[in-house]
Amino acid sequence: MNKIELLETFLSISIDHNEVLQNPSRYTLIDIRNAPKEIKKDKIKDSLEIPMKTLADKLQTLDKSKTYVVYDWNAGTTLGKKAVLLLLQNDFDAFELSCAIEGWKGMNLPLETVNN
Amino acid sequence: MNKIELLETFLSISIDHNEVLQNPSRYTLIDIRNAPKEIKKDKIKDSLEIPMKTLADKLQTLDKSKTYVVYDWNAGTTLGKKAVLLLLQNDFDAFELSCAIEGWKGMNLPLETVNN
Amino acid sequence: MNKIELLETFLSISIDHNEVLQNPSRYTLIDIRNAPKEIKKDKIKDSLEIPMKTLADKLQTLDKSKTYVVYDWNAGTTLGKKAVLLLLQNDFDAFELSCAIEGWKGMNLPLETVNN
Repeated sequence: MNKIELLETFLSISIDHNEVLQNPSRYTLIDIRNAPKEIKKDKIKDSLEIPMKTLADKLQTLDKSKTYVVYDWNAGTTLGKKAVLLLLQNDFDAFELSCAIEGWKGMNLPLETVNN
Repeated sequence: MNKIELLETFLSISIDHNEVLQNPSRYTLIDIRNAPKEIKKDKIKDSLEIPMKTLADKLQTLDKSKTYVVYDWNAGTTLGKKAVLLLLQNDFDAFELSCAIEGWKGMNLPLETVNN
Repeated sequence: MNKIELLETFLSISIDHNEVLQNPSRYTLIDIRNAPKEIKKDKIKDSLEIPMKTLADKLQTLDKSKTYVVYDWNAGTTLGKKAVLLLLQNDFDAFELSCAIEGWKGMNLPLETVNN
């Protein structure tokens, strides 16, 4: 296996927050964290809340003309990649937010409270 | 290289804590952190302590009928993947715990003190 | 895709801090974090400061006889992999520091202040 080819493919699955912020009409963020709302407390502004454990059942509510960008707590977990895989397998255009909500908060980007 | 094939293979190396907890007789957790005991302080309950730097020498103490699940401090490091690779290369069945000890603690799952 | 081959290639892109510390004349560390200096505050001792967003323009200042080791805030982000890809695509020898600056700090390894 070729290192460059592996890196190109691995990186093609993720997207930077700058790219997302520059094209708000193109990208729809999805918070796929499975934690209860009281642990999550806040989420990225205007993102959908679809916990990964419910995503397979919610696919029919999504729009194939949009590009979905999923995020978990941080960039090292596998949950975002599981969500991207499920979306790609079902012919959706999807990426993982490259620094997850941790990086978004670190850059002081807009959040909103998770409603009960 | 195909994105879906890469994600499927990449994700097939890791396993979720729920799957491990539901099959305690099948999975044996291994703490492969190299840090000294005073830095580790605690570890996942009932996990073996085999620092990665000693794993190659300890392979003969492991059981090929079991499935090993290794964990490091967090999900982003490479140490867990190095341990899985070494185990797979030696014909053991092995996975990386997908959120490492950081995720296990975040879910308030059982720990135990590291003994000196 | 074969799990072992994927892990071998994935891991061949990163390098451990011990290996770097044992061969200081061979490896040159590069801090590729894009954050402002006041957020970074400190960096790994003797590392170059080349934010990822400027790396493409700085390639001509690098030396093809050296081996470059890039690092970001932590091991889970994609920025280090983007930098390694760019360096490999331009025929430089390059790795990602496997635990990033987070792991370096955790081991109490030498840092220096980022100058304004």
